[in-house]
Amino acid sequence: MECLKGKSVYKGVAFGKISVLKKDDYVVKRVKIEDTQAELQRVEEAVEASKQQLQKLYEKALKEVGEASAAIFEVHQMMLEDEDYKESIENIISTQQVNAEYAVASTGDNFSQMFASMDDDYMRARAADIKDISNRLVKNLSGQSADVMDLDEPVIVVADDLSPSETVQMDKEKILAFVTVHGSANSHTAILARMMNIPALIGVDMDLEALHTGTEAAVDGFHGEFFVNPSEEVKERIQRKIEEEKEKQELLQQLKGKENVTKGGRHINLYANIGSVADMGYVLENDAGGIGLFRSEFLYIGRNELPDEEEQFQAYKQAVQNMAGKKVIIRTLDIGADKQADYLNIEKEENPALGYRAIRICLAQPEIFKTQLRALFRASAYGNLSIMYPMITSTEEVVQIQAIVQEVKEELKADGIPYNDVEEGVMIETPAAVMISDELAKMVDFFSIGTNDLTQYTLAIDRQNEKLDRFYNPHHKAILKMIQMVVDSAHQEGKWAGICGELGADPELTETFVRMGVDELSVAPSMILKLRKIIREME
Amino acid sequence: MECLKGKSVYKGVAFGKISVLKKDDYVVKRVKIEDTQAELQRVEEAVEASKQQLQKLYEKALKEVGEASAAIFEVHQMMLEDEDYKESIENIISTQQVNAEYAVASTGDNFSQMFASMDDDYMRARAADIKDISNRLVKNLSGQSADVMDLDEPVIVVADDLSPSETVQMDKEKILAFVTVHGSANSHTAILARMMNIPALIGVDMDLEALHTGTEAAVDGFHGEFFVNPSEEVKERIQRKIEEEKEKQELLQQLKGKENVTKGGRHINLYANIGSVADMGYVLENDAGGIGLFRSEFLYIGRNELPDEEEQFQAYKQAVQNMAGKKVIIRTLDIGADKQADYLNIEKEENPALGYRAIRICLAQPEIFKTQLRALFRASAYGNLSIMYPMITSTEEVVQIQAIVQEVKEELKADGIPYNDVEEGVMIETPAAVMISDELAKMVDFFSIGTNDLTQYTLAIDRQNEKLDRFYNPHHKAILKMIQMVVDSAHQEGKWAGICGELGADPELTETFVRMGVDELSVAPSMILKLRKIIREME
Repeated sequence: MECLKGKSVYKGVAFGKISVLKKDDYVVKRVKIEDTQAELQRVEEAVEASKQQLQKLYEKALKEVGEASAAIFEVHQMMLEDEDYKESIENIISTQQVNAEYAVASTGDNFSQMFASMDDDYMRARAADIKDISNRLVKNLSGQSADVMDLDEPVIVVADDLSPSETVQMDKEKILAFVTVHGSANSHTAILARMMNIPALIGVDMDLEALHTGTEAAVDGFHGEFFVNPSEEVKERIQRKIEEEKEKQELLQQLKGKENVTKGGRHINLYANIGSVADMGYVLENDAGGIGLFRSEFLYIGRNELPDEEEQFQAYKQAVQNMAGKKVIIRTLDIGADKQADYLNIEKEENPALGYRAIRICLAQPEIFKTQLRALFRASAYGNLSIMYPMITSTEEVVQIQAIVQEVKEELKADGIPYNDVEEGVMIETPAAVMISDELAKMVDFFSIGTNDLTQYTLAIDRQNEKLDRFYNPHHKAILKMIQMVVDSAHQEGKWAGICGELGADPELTETFVRMGVDELSVAPSMILKLRKIIREME
Repeated sequence: MECLKGKSVYKGVAFGKISVLKKDDYVVKRVKIEDTQAELQRVEEAVEASKQQLQKLYEKALKEVGEASAAIFEVHQMMLEDEDYKESIENIISTQQVNAEYAVASTGDNFSQMFASMDDDYMRARAADIKDISNRLVKNLSGQSADVMDLDEPVIVVADDLSPSETVQMDKEKILAFVTVHGSANSHTAILARMMNIPALIGVDMDLEALHTGTEAAVDGFHGEFFVNPSEEVKERIQRKIEEEKEKQELLQQLKGKENVTKGGRHINLYANIGSVADMGYVLENDAGGIGLFRSEFLYIGRNELPDEEEQFQAYKQAVQNMAGKKVIIRTLDIGADKQADYLNIEKEENPALGYRAIRICLAQPEIFKTQLRALFRASAYGNLSIMYPMITSTEEVVQIQAIVQEVKEELKADGIPYNDVEEGVMIETPAAVMISDELAKMVDFFSIGTNDLTQYTLAIDRQNEKLDRFYNPHHKAILKMIQMVVDSAHQEGKWAGICGELGADPELTETFVRMGVDELSVAPSMILKLRKIIREME
């Protein structure tokens, strides 16, 4: 038995045979050709075929994992249309008089190297996408199937890394777990794994050459362990754990329709965090009481211009209508120099986490903010909509927001457009907001504590920075004290306070939060029933 | 009259004639030569002459502005010895058979362009240094004086930007103010201006071609205004202000030797912040009661390897001996990915302000920390030394520090090396430390609140980011509440709490801090007497 360690991105257990996904690094030959016109024609056809495949992958992903995750295949389709990319391929064919496969492969290498050497994390990540589309083109050119992952029986997929297309095209029912050498907790693959509820380990230091498809293995996502040829003892332990997990899932299903109430009769709202309209299926499936954090960034990211009022209105309207009267709390634009939206022209910053972002952009560029607010208020006429403002640090900011909201309402009234009064709240995610929460509570309807950013600023630790793992303690007393301060400030003014950061979904803290008086926990849809169980078992 | 706006880096007023310092962008001609040996010899001689000039500038600067600021001329001397730089000059002469002036100028251009295109702020700043030394070499080659700034009468120096050599070689007595188009608040020129107490405005949007030496002008550093051909009214106002400032200075001088005590009898310690042993003259000149923040980074920055124990010991020993029994609080290494120390191999980080820095480096690389602690404890035998640890976020870190300190003490004891018991305190500069200050107060002897970082983390705003100026409020209530929490926590355990950030030197808040119970303010030496005056006038 060999036990390898990795970083778990979705906790769960699996046992079965492995399927090693080796990158087919077949050699593309450079062949001199005479009829360059014919080669150019072949490229056209391969691009067309690739686009069709990508469109199918997009539709498959949309259904299975939602709009936000499927968007990558739209991006790939756009990349195939990129003028520079196509021109490079055509130039190589024309000037060097070589075959299309070679022109595509070397263009892919050049472009992905260029992206890989960039400073911007987002652009660096595009290197993998360029490789992905170039591989697809080459395969289509050489008549191979570009989408090869057909699995006969459920397996543990082992790979160096997985491209988004590889991940999505796999049949969800046939995958027991993912185990990869590379990848990050924020990679597309990790995100997909979480959405698909598949155990996944990344950063596993293994030699793929030494592993063979068909070998028995076990994955323990709770301990970040990957066992190759597990001993009988490990096999039994994992099997037991699998049974337990299955039973737990079944028991949880029985909690659907039940209330989130302690034995003492205290009621808590359990809401869901989502990133796009397409995620709403998960919300209803897991019986969430509402949406506690609807990130509106999906409307702004991965495109070339700002979404207009009508497009936003339609999305928000659909969201509140889908939820049929249940509360939908939409967070206004929360974007910064580290999240990509080229058209906003946000300059590179020395410390983007402490930079020009979220409400700061909205107050400095109120025309962007007003468009979103108009769309939100218009949608409020169609359901139970609330609005939440991110990255607040001062009462002055709230005053400015309220003035803009007032303007928007008056404009709508003048235009005869209907809207409802909505609850307006602020995210408490800076230490400054915690310290002045007594004053903020007088100005707004509710608080939602964003523990991810709050912890980052309070400990002065960038969570993405691996070197600081030993100093990062998400259960730090400072954070718990701050949460208590915020809840007390809210209750003092008769307002409610919830938590929408990752800490809110931590089962170890649910009881603590309930005792602190927290009124709402907004968590990933898959956590709703687990937390309901804990709450219902509390004395 | 023309009124131009700029950013004040040292507040003060000035009135007089301007002297426009135009960059002599004379053209270096490319001349074919036959005797390349003679050209190489000329380069050697010019390098030698330049090094001697730089050595003189270094000595002048050392006397006038201290070691930290003078170090740039040592750096320039080292740059002149850089192998790549010299090789490039020699290659151009030998292969192109051209004159030395041309070879130096084009090498200077190439190298400075290379530096300017780098990502690292520190490396980018080196572009100006490369230009500076290349200009000096060319001037020495062509027989011009490299150090030209001889002023006959006191003037307001107006320039595009000032290089460190230009700034230092000017006669301090002949400069009324600096006014520049470029430059940042953290540039060498700004630092020098502050140390020399000279009013300075940067970022003034002016057309140097339209300004003439000899024109009358006035500088109001309090309002960031530069008046060209000021009206009689402005002249009178500025003259009055100059008189007032002079009188204030004279009155302040009378406060030397007096106590920092309110009319009600409450005593406050006023200590000084310094950055190197050479700054100690300012401390004594301004009658500081001690040193509240001795930054030890000057020993680590701008060099190629870690300072050894002996070098550190000598510096700390000199510091405590100079202060002759007065308290000297030395802060342990406070460095990160944004401060340069190549030999520490700190990787580039997405958010260096939330990164691997200060105590985190010391705890992760305890051998560096132990060397510094050994030097500090050895120096403690020679005076009144205290130690302060930066960037604390948890009690666990303090426990780890105490274990290492214990080790160091036992080693010294075993080696028979004498040391005194020292007061050990922590910087309170993260919101986490504020929230757990009640627990920290039980573990250490004192607190020193670092308001610069604390404000940055609390407001989630990078102070260096100009785009956020409208959101940055250094007097934010959250910070004042936090200071009160920290002071109360300290007093609860019978410990003392001071402020060593910029806020501590803000005269508008002195009274507030005294009423809050703050025990110590550690400020720039030039602020000591001003604060003493405020305190003595308090009821």
